[in-house]
Amino acid sequence: MSEFATAYPNSRKVYVDGPQGVQVPMREISLSGGEASLRVYDTSGPQGLDVRQGLPKVREPWLTQRLARRTAGDSITQMAYARRGEITPEMDFIALREGLPAEFIRDEVARGRAIIPSNINHTELEPMIIGRHFLVKINANIGNSAVSSSIEQEVQKLQWATLWGADTVMDLSTGKNIHETREWIIRNSPVPIGTVPIYQALEKVGGRPEDLTWEIYRDTLVEQCEQGVDYFTVHAGVLLRYVPMTARRVTGIVSRGGSIMAKWCLAHHQENFTYTHFREICEIMRAYDVSFSLGDGLRPGSIADANDEAQFAELRTQGELTKIAWEYDVQVMNEGPGHVPMHLIKENMENQLEWCHEAPFYTLGPLTTDIAPGYDHITSAIGAAMIGWYGTAMLCYVTPKEHLGLPNRDDVKAGVIAYKIAAHAADLAKGHPRAREWDDALSRARFDFRWEDQFNLALDPVTARAYHDETLPAEGAKVAHFCSMCGPKFCSMELTQQVRDYARDKGLADQAAQQAGMEEKALEFRKRPEIYVPVDQGR
Amino acid sequence: MSEFATAYPNSRKVYVDGPQGVQVPMREISLSGGEASLRVYDTSGPQGLDVRQGLPKVREPWLTQRLARRTAGDSITQMAYARRGEITPEMDFIALREGLPAEFIRDEVARGRAIIPSNINHTELEPMIIGRHFLVKINANIGNSAVSSSIEQEVQKLQWATLWGADTVMDLSTGKNIHETREWIIRNSPVPIGTVPIYQALEKVGGRPEDLTWEIYRDTLVEQCEQGVDYFTVHAGVLLRYVPMTARRVTGIVSRGGSIMAKWCLAHHQENFTYTHFREICEIMRAYDVSFSLGDGLRPGSIADANDEAQFAELRTQGELTKIAWEYDVQVMNEGPGHVPMHLIKENMENQLEWCHEAPFYTLGPLTTDIAPGYDHITSAIGAAMIGWYGTAMLCYVTPKEHLGLPNRDDVKAGVIAYKIAAHAADLAKGHPRAREWDDALSRARFDFRWEDQFNLALDPVTARAYHDETLPAEGAKVAHFCSMCGPKFCSMELTQQVRDYARDKGLADQAAQQAGMEEKALEFRKRPEIYVPVDQGR
Repeated sequence: MSEFATAYPNSRKVYVDGPQGVQVPMREISLSGGEASLRVYDTSGPQGLDVRQGLPKVREPWLTQRLARRTAGDSITQMAYARRGEITPEMDFIALREGLPAEFIRDEVARGRAIIPSNINHTELEPMIIGRHFLVKINANIGNSAVSSSIEQEVQKLQWATLWGADTVMDLSTGKNIHETREWIIRNSPVPIGTVPIYQALEKVGGRPEDLTWEIYRDTLVEQCEQGVDYFTVHAGVLLRYVPMTARRVTGIVSRGGSIMAKWCLAHHQENFTYTHFREICEIMRAYDVSFSLGDGLRPGSIADANDEAQFAELRTQGELTKIAWEYDVQVMNEGPGHVPMHLIKENMENQLEWCHEAPFYTLGPLTTDIAPGYDHITSAIGAAMIGWYGTAMLCYVTPKEHLGLPNRDDVKAGVIAYKIAAHAADLAKGHPRAREWDDALSRARFDFRWEDQFNLALDPVTARAYHDETLPAEGAKVAHFCSMCGPKFCSMELTQQVRDYARDKGLADQAAQQAGMEEKALEFRKRPEIYVPVDQGR
Repeated sequence: MSEFATAYPNSRKVYVDGPQGVQVPMREISLSGGEASLRVYDTSGPQGLDVRQGLPKVREPWLTQRLARRTAGDSITQMAYARRGEITPEMDFIALREGLPAEFIRDEVARGRAIIPSNINHTELEPMIIGRHFLVKINANIGNSAVSSSIEQEVQKLQWATLWGADTVMDLSTGKNIHETREWIIRNSPVPIGTVPIYQALEKVGGRPEDLTWEIYRDTLVEQCEQGVDYFTVHAGVLLRYVPMTARRVTGIVSRGGSIMAKWCLAHHQENFTYTHFREICEIMRAYDVSFSLGDGLRPGSIADANDEAQFAELRTQGELTKIAWEYDVQVMNEGPGHVPMHLIKENMENQLEWCHEAPFYTLGPLTTDIAPGYDHITSAIGAAMIGWYGTAMLCYVTPKEHLGLPNRDDVKAGVIAYKIAAHAADLAKGHPRAREWDDALSRARFDFRWEDQFNLALDPVTARAYHDETLPAEGAKVAHFCSMCGPKFCSMELTQQVRDYARDKGLADQAAQQAGMEEKALEFRKRPEIYVPVDQGR
C-alpha cells in the first residue's frame, strides 16, 4: 500500500481538468450517511514512482510552447507574463487549486502581491501561489548537515513532508554532496524547492566566510538556477552598518546566512556583496524565473530581541530591494521572524506591508516564548496562526527539535501538522471561501456520530482513529451514539438531538427564529472577517 | 527518586517566608556559568507523602483563628474579607507567589476582578488567584467515567497534572464512586478543585435528567461543599427560552451540563432550577467560600456555531447572575468557549468584560479549527494564548484526546505543557512583571551554549535533553559551541560572538548605539504591552 493510501484511508487522488490542458490534483475524501465527498487541496504529488526516474515533467509542454514563441529580450517570469496580461497555464492550474478566477491570480502576480515560484527548469512542479489573498501556505525545511543524514533520507523527508501538506520545501543542506542531494530532491518534488545558496558557496571556500567572493557566489546561483531551484534566500539586507546594532542583543545574530554575511562584511569592512551586486543577481534569476526570498539575517532569536532596530533596519532594506527586483520582473517574497511575543506580532506585518510594498511575507513561526524547547512547534504555531491571519502568505514550519537537533521523520510530520493547523486557522479567520467547508463537514460528522467520517476528515486520520480506539476499540463503538468521554448516559450530542426533536415538535425553533431574526443579522455582520478582500469577479 | 526530581533535574523546592506565617513554595532552578538561580511559580505541591494520609493542612491555623473571631452573620468568603479591608493569609501567600503587593490582591478580590477559590474545608490548599491582572492560570480536567478509570488513577492524574503546572484541577467524574474519588482528590490536592455538581446529582436519579429536582441538586451542593470543593460549575444561564436558539446549530449543545439542564427545562417546560434557586445556591456557597464558575452550557461546539445568539444570550445571563452572587460576597468567574475562529475571539473577551462586570473569564481553549482531532491541544493552544492575552484569567486545557477518548497520563502532560505555553505567551504579551525573566534566562543560556542550563530551564527538561541527545548523545556535545542543526562550521551563534568581539574592538557598537539612541527609545515605547495595568503601589 502506498504511503498516501496508508495516511489517508477513504481518500483518493483525483485530477480536475482546466484550461490549457492543466490537470489539478485534489484529495477526495469519501463520506458516509449520504454526505457528498469533500475535495481538499493536495500537495502529495504523484505516488508510487521510482525515485531514480523522478516525477513526470508536467510543465514541459507548457514551457516548450511558451519559450518557443519568445521574442528576444522578453523576460519569461510569471510576473512578466502577468504584467503583459497573459494568463499562463501555471495561473490556470492555481485558479482551480484555490477556487479563484485566473484573472485574479494574474493580477495579484502582476502587482507583486503574490508569487508563483516556478523555475523553468523545475518541470516536475505542480504550480502553487504565495500571497495574502490565497490559502496560507507552509514550508518544511529538510537538508543534511555535517553531522548526519543521507541523500535517500532527504528525498524521503521531502515526500513525507509533502504527503502531510508542505506547500514548499527548503533544502538547507550544508554537508557533503549538496549538489547531488539537491538534484534528487528537485527531480522528485511536486512543490517549489527553495535554497540558501550562500551555504553551498561557503562549502566551496572550506567554510571560511571571509574567503567568500562575489564570483563564487554568482557561479553557485547559476548552478542552482540550472538545476531548477524555485526560490533563493538571499540575505542582501544585512548591511555593514546594521551589524553593530546586534552587538547588545541577548542572542545576537541567529540566522546562519545572516551571520555569514555579517562576518564577511566585518572581515573586509565592505558592504555585503549580495547588496552591491543585487542587480546582477536579479538578471540571473530573471533568466530562470527564480523567485527571491529576501532573507531576514538579523531576525530576533529571542523574545528579548524582538522588533528591535537591527531587525527593522533590515526590513526597510528588504523593501528597497523588492522594488529593484520588480524592475526586472523578478518575483519576490520577504522573510520575517523568528521570536516575537504576541503583542509585537502585528507590528511586523504592518511594517512589512508598508515598507515592502505588499510583497508576500514569509515568516519563521514566530515563536511566542523561549521557555519550551522540545515544544517549539507549539510555541511557534501560536505566532504563525496569528501572523497568518494578519496577512502573512507562507509560514516556515518549526519542528519539536528546533534549537535541539535535526528533525527525524516524526518531527517533520509533527511540524507540518502543527503548521497546517496554523495555516488553516488563519484561512478561516481571513474568510477564504474554501476554508470553512472542511470544518463544517467534520463538525457535521461529529454531531451525527459518523466516527469513520470524523477520522477520515481529520488532518491525520490514522492518529485520530488510534486515539479513539485506545479507549473504545470495539468496532461497535464506531457506530455508537456516544463516546468514551461521557459514556452512554451523559452524551451531550445525543441529548441535543432529543432537545432538537422536542423543539421542532413544539414549533419552538420557528418562534425563536423569528424573534432572533434581526439580532442574527447583526451577528452575521460582526462575524465577517476583516482582512479577506473579496475577489472582484468583474475584472 | 521522586517524580519532582525526575521531571526537574537541577531544581529544588524552596519555601519563601511571608507575613502571617505563610510559606510559599517555589521551584528554584540552579544554573551554571555564574548565572543566578531562577525561581519559578510552583504548583507541584508537597512531594513524597502517603496518599492515604493526604497533604499537610497548611490553612488550618489560618482558618481556626479567622473563624474563631467571627461575629455572627459575617460572611467568611475571601471577597467578604477583601471588602472589609482585611488582608487574609491567603492574600499574603498569593502576593509572594505573584510578586505583587498584598493590597493589590485584596483590592482586585474586593472588586470581583479576581477570585481566590478556597473552600474553608480544603485546608490542604496552597492558595492561588485567578484574575486578569495576574499570571494566566490553567486548569486540567480529570475524572473517571462510566467507561474507564479507577480512583488511584485519578489521584495520580491529579499529582501528574500539578507536577507539570496545572493551577486548578476539575474532577469531572461521572461514573461510580464519585464521592470517594473526590475525597481522595481533595485531601491530596495543593490546588483548587472544581466540580460540576449536576453530574453527581444526575447519578443519584439514575441518569435521567427529567428526574432531577432542586432538592437533590441542593443536597449534592452541600455534600460537595462539606468535602472541600473550591469551585462549582453551575449552568444557571441555560434558560428555557434560549434552548430553541440552538436548534439550527451545526453541533447543537455540546456541554454535558448544558444539555442536561436543557433537557430538564424542556421536559418540564419550566425555567432552569439553578436559575430560579440561584440565591439559595449563593447562600450555600457563601457558607463555605465556594466560588462560582458560571457555566457556558450553550458554548459553540464548532467553528460554525461560534459567537451565535444562543451563546451570547447565555453570557448576558451569566453577567446578571454574577452581580447577584456578589451581593452575597460569593466569588465568581465566568466560563467561555469552546470553538471560535481567530477573528471572533476578541469579541468574546470584550462582551464578557462588559456584560459580566470584569469578573474573571475562564475559557475552554478556544479551538481555532475543527479539522484536527488528535491535535486539539494545538488547535486550542492558539486560541487560548490569544484570549489569555486579551484578558482571560484561566484557560481550561484540552488534550490530544479531545473529541476522541479519555486522556491517559501522556495526554494529560501534553495538554498541560501546551497550556503552560499558551499561558506564558499571554503573560509575556500582557507584560506581567515576572514573565520575561524566564525567557531571558533561557535565551542567555542558548547564546552561551550552556546546554545543561537550557535543558534545566525548559518547561519539560527531560524531553529537551532527550531530543538533543538523539542527534548528539556524547557528553562532550553538551559543552560544544555548536549543535547538530548547523554543525561546527556554520553555527550562527558562534559566528555572532566573533562579530560582537569585532564590533567591540572597532568601537562600532558604541557608535551605533549613539546613533540609535532616539530610535530605540521610540521602539521601547511601542513595545509596551497594552493590557497590563501597572499596580498602583501607593494605594
